[in-house]
Amino acid sequence: MCPPAGAESVRPRAGDNGGMSGGTKARGRRPGGEDTRGAVLAAARTEFAARGYQKASMRAIARAAGVDAALLHHYFGSKDRLFMAALEFPLDPRTVVESVFAGDPATVGERVAGFVLGLWEQPPVRERLLALVRTAAASEEVAALMRDFMVTELVARVAGLLDLPDPELRVELVMSQVVGLAVARYVIAVEPLASAPPEALAPLLGRTVQGYLTG
Amino acid sequence: MCPPAGAESVRPRAGDNGGMSGGTKARGRRPGGEDTRGAVLAAARTEFAARGYQKASMRAIARAAGVDAALLHHYFGSKDRLFMAALEFPLDPRTVVESVFAGDPATVGERVAGFVLGLWEQPPVRERLLALVRTAAASEEVAALMRDFMVTELVARVAGLLDLPDPELRVELVMSQVVGLAVARYVIAVEPLASAPPEALAPLLGRTVQGYLTG
Repeated sequence: MCPPAGAESVRPRAGDNGGMSGGTKARGRRPGGEDTRGAVLAAARTEFAARGYQKASMRAIARAAGVDAALLHHYFGSKDRLFMAALEFPLDPRTVVESVFAGDPATVGERVAGFVLGLWEQPPVRERLLALVRTAAASEEVAALMRDFMVTELVARVAGLLDLPDPELRVELVMSQVVGLAVARYVIAVEPLASAPPEALAPLLGRTVQGYLTG
Repeated sequence: MCPPAGAESVRPRAGDNGGMSGGTKARGRRPGGEDTRGAVLAAARTEFAARGYQKASMRAIARAAGVDAALLHHYFGSKDRLFMAALEFPLDPRTVVESVFAGDPATVGERVAGFVLGLWEQPPVRERLLALVRTAAASEEVAALMRDFMVTELVARVAGLLDLPDPELRVELVMSQVVGLAVARYVIAVEPLASAPPEALAPLLGRTVQGYLTG
């Protein structure tokens, strides 16, 4: 069974690690063939941009794409998965929460550092993430959309796992360090940070994350 | 907390750029007057952009601006001060090193956090810093120039104060957290981070900085 044509641009590539979304659920094409899929993704981008992540409606997207809402759910499962497909977002917050943040709180920093560095060190994933960062930097609308998605799907879930004051603030401090590190290392490429082996960074980043989340 | 060092003294006054416009040359310009200052700053921007911070030459800038090299030194003192004036860089690395990083290593994180938050919380300084971040994000050339300046004037000096392995890496991790936090708080404005009082952020940021610099 073939993946839907055109899926290449929205699916994580083979070899992406466990944090990758794989959330577009490429399946054999039936009523929702390539044209339908493209129409849905275009409608989703328009709806998300116009109304933000939280207020965007699956029903409105289905209507705009001229498909049945049940079909939309069948193919994309949920709003977060449709968002990830439409924006080529290579990171599934559900998987990140389940496989990285959940588990022993005493070693969460280590797991987050290992996950983040493992993710950014894969060139295709890094390129896609950097493209998203650049697009967000250039457009307030896109930045707001990303923020809305991340707060709803990642920050809120991780914060729910923490038993400390200001849990959302702590999760956002982790995100600020992760994004700042990625920009310094991969965009600005300041040396020696840009060439430091991940093994040298992991303990330093891990301790910071641990401090924010449990300290 | 330190004032944004040099913000008043090095920022080009209104009309500097206008001083470059046609027709002003006929007026008798005095050495070091507005016209000369504007010509020097324009020549400096061109030279820094073309050759980078380290390779840019005060002599070449003086020549391009049609002024004596001694006059250039008299008015701007040194290459770092000329750079800050030309790029409206509102932060003097020398002052930061002397007043923030030097001193008791056991409380350096606290001092850095207080300084950084105090700096960003001043709207005019914040605006100027964000403008620099945006310009650097949009131009690889500007990003390289900023990186070159910061590594030469800030990272190297602070690293020289540390007695731990990988001192430059540690300083750059601090910078990555500081820039990442600024972007998350002031650009992306993710809540509750954007509205958190500086007093709530300072201890969390301070501990991270302390960990990178002495941990």
